[in-house]
Amino acid sequence: MRKEKLEELRNLIEELKSVRCEKRRDGKNFLTNIPYSFKLNNGRVLYRERLIKGGKDGSATIIMPVLSNTEILTVIEPRVFTELTVGVGFPAGYVENGENPIEGARRELKEETGYVSSKLIEIDSYYQDEGCSSALNRLYLALDCKKKYNQSLDKDEIVRYMSFTYDELFELEKMGYIRGGNSKLLLEKSKTYMKGR
Amino acid sequence: MRKEKLEELRNLIEELKSVRCEKRRDGKNFLTNIPYSFKLNNGRVLYRERLIKGGKDGSATIIMPVLSNTEILTVIEPRVFTELTVGVGFPAGYVENGENPIEGARRELKEETGYVSSKLIEIDSYYQDEGCSSALNRLYLALDCKKKYNQSLDKDEIVRYMSFTYDELFELEKMGYIRGGNSKLLLEKSKTYMKGR
Repeated sequence: MRKEKLEELRNLIEELKSVRCEKRRDGKNFLTNIPYSFKLNNGRVLYRERLIKGGKDGSATIIMPVLSNTEILTVIEPRVFTELTVGVGFPAGYVENGENPIEGARRELKEETGYVSSKLIEIDSYYQDEGCSSALNRLYLALDCKKKYNQSLDKDEIVRYMSFTYDELFELEKMGYIRGGNSKLLLEKSKTYMKGR
Repeated sequence: MRKEKLEELRNLIEELKSVRCEKRRDGKNFLTNIPYSFKLNNGRVLYRERLIKGGKDGSATIIMPVLSNTEILTVIEPRVFTELTVGVGFPAGYVENGENPIEGARRELKEETGYVSSKLIEIDSYYQDEGCSSALNRLYLALDCKKKYNQSLDKDEIVRYMSFTYDELFELEKMGYIRGGNSKLLLEKSKTYMKGR
């Protein structure tokens, strides 16, 4: 791991750390649930709640942006409920209702980093939380990414980005900076595609 | 993949499929949220909701049980919000408040399958849903598992189990039977440990 990269990352993390946390009385209810009854083929009846995020099913895209110099773009953002309160991972976001997932991936990459890719490849998909959600997450490799735009974030969103070599990503994971399941699974699933590159 | 195994699995899946689904008016509110405000080191203020599952933070353990004949135990259970409505994966469950995660893993393995392991190894941990939860999931390899008890399930829980070879697990994943992120990540992370065995 290059020293100057690690120092830059640590500075960003320091900047984005949570220093105060307050419970609020009222919320906007981003997270809600719908209760259901299910009857199974064998006659059993089950009660389950489905998690809804901002009126959507919570399906997300997670994107590994490969730059022309073969480095990979990571995003650094507040992850207030984690131990470090800041997370390092890959650009990601929820698919809008009615949106094609690959278009969602392209949009999230552009919004969070300003980069565009000439070739997005879906490498896997999985249920994020099988027991209580229908969120189907998709993993993408975004090849030959180029900076074309400025970031365009929601007002409640803070995202910084930095590039690392592919090997450095696994060092970041070992050091405990990459700790989100989505980013970890993308790291693993990318190996088949990245080894030959 | 052994033909008779695949047929047995397909029969189990057929039995557990959802045939009817009804929205309910009232729920037990297993899924709830707590709204927070956070102040960051750089002065920015963020609003975030934290997902709570049954009064707990939702941290789970996921266990890959290795039997003495080197086959791996999988569980088949209703996953009502997924396309197939049934999922194939590994024993898993939420850690109780105040419970040591490795004890939670041991308990879930016993409850869901009746098997006990002489050696549980934690192979990785990760945040399940970094943006809106503090759930920290842990992946375990459970070596030398032996059947010692009957299943002891909650009344709203249905779990069947079957063993497959390690290679067959990856076939099940390719066939789309293993589609949960937790089980997929455990499959990937187990490779380092299982290759030498």
